[in-house]
Amino acid sequence: MKKLDDIVSLCKRRGFIFQGSDIYGGMAGTWDFGPLGTTLKKNITDAWWKFFVEDRDDMYGIDAAIIMNPRTWEASGHTATFADPLVECKECKSRFRADKIADGINESVTTEEFLATHTKCPVCGKENWGPIRKFNMMFTTHVGAVLPDDDAESAKNNIAYLRPETAQGIFTNYKNVVDAFYPDLPFGLAQQGKAFRNEISPRDFILRDRECSQMEIEYFIRPDNWEQEFEKMRALSHEFLERVIGLDPAQIHELEVPAADRAHYSKRTIDFMFDYPNGEEELMGLAYRTDFDLNNIARESGKSMEYRDKVTNETFVPHVIEPSIGVERLILAVLASAYTEDEIDGNKRIVLKLPETLAPYRFCVSPLLKNKPELVSKAKEVYQSLKTKYGNVTWDDSGNIGKRYRKQDEIGTPKCIVIDFDTLEDNTVTIRDRDTAKQIRVDIAKL
Amino acid sequence: MKKLDDIVSLCKRRGFIFQGSDIYGGMAGTWDFGPLGTTLKKNITDAWWKFFVEDRDDMYGIDAAIIMNPRTWEASGHTATFADPLVECKECKSRFRADKIADGINESVTTEEFLATHTKCPVCGKENWGPIRKFNMMFTTHVGAVLPDDDAESAKNNIAYLRPETAQGIFTNYKNVVDAFYPDLPFGLAQQGKAFRNEISPRDFILRDRECSQMEIEYFIRPDNWEQEFEKMRALSHEFLERVIGLDPAQIHELEVPAADRAHYSKRTIDFMFDYPNGEEELMGLAYRTDFDLNNIARESGKSMEYRDKVTNETFVPHVIEPSIGVERLILAVLASAYTEDEIDGNKRIVLKLPETLAPYRFCVSPLLKNKPELVSKAKEVYQSLKTKYGNVTWDDSGNIGKRYRKQDEIGTPKCIVIDFDTLEDNTVTIRDRDTAKQIRVDIAKL
Repeated sequence: MKKLDDIVSLCKRRGFIFQGSDIYGGMAGTWDFGPLGTTLKKNITDAWWKFFVEDRDDMYGIDAAIIMNPRTWEASGHTATFADPLVECKECKSRFRADKIADGINESVTTEEFLATHTKCPVCGKENWGPIRKFNMMFTTHVGAVLPDDDAESAKNNIAYLRPETAQGIFTNYKNVVDAFYPDLPFGLAQQGKAFRNEISPRDFILRDRECSQMEIEYFIRPDNWEQEFEKMRALSHEFLERVIGLDPAQIHELEVPAADRAHYSKRTIDFMFDYPNGEEELMGLAYRTDFDLNNIARESGKSMEYRDKVTNETFVPHVIEPSIGVERLILAVLASAYTEDEIDGNKRIVLKLPETLAPYRFCVSPLLKNKPELVSKAKEVYQSLKTKYGNVTWDDSGNIGKRYRKQDEIGTPKCIVIDFDTLEDNTVTIRDRDTAKQIRVDIAKL
Repeated sequence: MKKLDDIVSLCKRRGFIFQGSDIYGGMAGTWDFGPLGTTLKKNITDAWWKFFVEDRDDMYGIDAAIIMNPRTWEASGHTATFADPLVECKECKSRFRADKIADGINESVTTEEFLATHTKCPVCGKENWGPIRKFNMMFTTHVGAVLPDDDAESAKNNIAYLRPETAQGIFTNYKNVVDAFYPDLPFGLAQQGKAFRNEISPRDFILRDRECSQMEIEYFIRPDNWEQEFEKMRALSHEFLERVIGLDPAQIHELEVPAADRAHYSKRTIDFMFDYPNGEEELMGLAYRTDFDLNNIARESGKSMEYRDKVTNETFVPHVIEPSIGVERLILAVLASAYTEDEIDGNKRIVLKLPETLAPYRFCVSPLLKNKPELVSKAKEVYQSLKTKYGNVTWDDSGNIGKRYRKQDEIGTPKCIVIDFDTLEDNTVTIRDRDTAKQIRVDIAKL
């Protein structure tokens, strides 16, 4: 797993991603985005918002609270079933997700099946297991004034959960949006935001974390043409991942989820798998969720989720197509695709070949020498004019020029512009290309 | 409190802001942003990010996890002191924040002081109170596999909190940023994100909620010139609120917080108060926090927070100036400033006079009549060309033209463009101004 470690190391060294609460030895399953990671994340989420929401006439944004009425999770089934199989080693008391430490079993493993695998404890090496227990992955909290000496019953009345997905924040707002806007069908509600899953064993950097960001759309359709709408969203998803984000189509593999593995309410699900450094993993999901969620909400709330067709006046509960992406998974796909080790003129280097639209900085401007005021002042001029025009421009006058190139390569800046003594004569600058390391001379006016 | 109710009602009717979990009767202290509120919020947070981060050379973004290592809150003092005075009515068991139901007492009220106010229970009207107890406002959760039959001790080891402020997510990343970037002093770390406070009595719409978004900067400076840096940040804060966001300077009042009311670590704090519909309330805070936070972190982590001056080589712990804004408070200030009831030609109307840069839509394009294909097709052409150019353009062909104007007035669209039969002849359109309701004819080419 060399490459993932290299990416983790680059991310910390260059200020993309730090371990969460790093200064206190970390907080398992959480990650903090540093300055460059914050910009990369923003570029990616903004690109999604523009492509799926702003540029379209049929999409509406939602920004719902993370703490929702707990009836949400009764209705959705999360309280009952959003659980992983947990097993405890009776010797050392370590706890594991059973299906992740034993080969050939799945999430619905029984105690007997697990014991039959004769798995040894990864911590102490013994084989002395307790029963498989279902561990609900929703984080629990209490809302309102609960005091330490309150009885269990009144504390229970105040239980709430951190949302384990952004989807239910959309479904619960469907009726309010229809009442306020009465949009034509099909229409979509889109949300970006945090979701929380109390993973028993977070792992693989930002791939399986306890706190993540999601980008989800619930696209409401007439039930009779779900197949066409599913195909349209499938094509859009490819366009987003490949053209907008720039991932290599050859690294994206559609997994048609067989009926037995699908959630019971889904009539069709495609997992978009990606070739991550540690192997193929889910990058995004596309699911036909039928009217399962709106019907659950109608039953739990007693309110009608029906939509009245504007032409025919018929009423029905819309069905739903859901494209769902984990932001951190997408960021890792982008970083892994960009991370390259190569040789330039016999010198090894690390270069992050990020698409120009996603890179934290598009240009880096430098004076050749830091201690020549005439170079610095000319370079500042070029920097200011590019910054005004493009925004995402950085200044670098540290170390020597080779060291600056190495740094800008590692953070993925596509072009480095250097102001030297010739610039003062002929108003041209050197532009160095990140990927080829080739340099050309260009007139400042043409930048 | 007529006006606040009117704003709440408009926000729901037009899809700006809904009660959180509305479909299930709500979740006290949470709010969901509908499509227009999501766009308004995004316009405001993007404007802050551009003004304070992107347009400057001395600011770096941070996006830290909400769930932090609990030592964070030991070091910051939140575990010990982030508490409100809670009092329970012994008759009806209702609980209240003591300083909010009794006049003339403050947050540090004692039981004796409270009883001396002879406050009656707002619910049952009796006067039979229990003691004042300190209620910590941090939401508690457990991270990792805690099972119902675990003993109290092991459950306690897994306690974590939802961050009650974004500031500590910045301070804990200070060292990682200095190591990765070694920025010149002064420099700032900026973060936008959710924070959670388990208010005993959430109230006043989005003004005192349990889940909110913050925009905070920790600006690291040399200790010897804190007064100048404080003044610079004070001027920037006014510029942001007044020029960028468009609030009326006459409604913003600086409250120089007296030493006795300041947090003990702050040597100077200014609260920027705003004239909200229900009275003056804090909109943002500007605090000189000294080296209090970095010193706490150094002590708790055992790691040095010193910065080495690039010229003099001297080392010291930087001091900090902190401008801090609650996003929802700013949104409410913007909505309250924009909300207007007036009369146009003898007809009463509600109009949201939002600044053009913040309004969800800049233009609305309409065909005069929906059932004339030639008007609709011409209008679609205009709509598409404006949407490509500006992005934030809406289409409206519902009801009659008067009804559309009423709707666009209520959602704050500055200009309505109507395509009528004259358009087909002379290529001109009607542009109606939101604030004056005046109409002018303009050539399409000049839009």
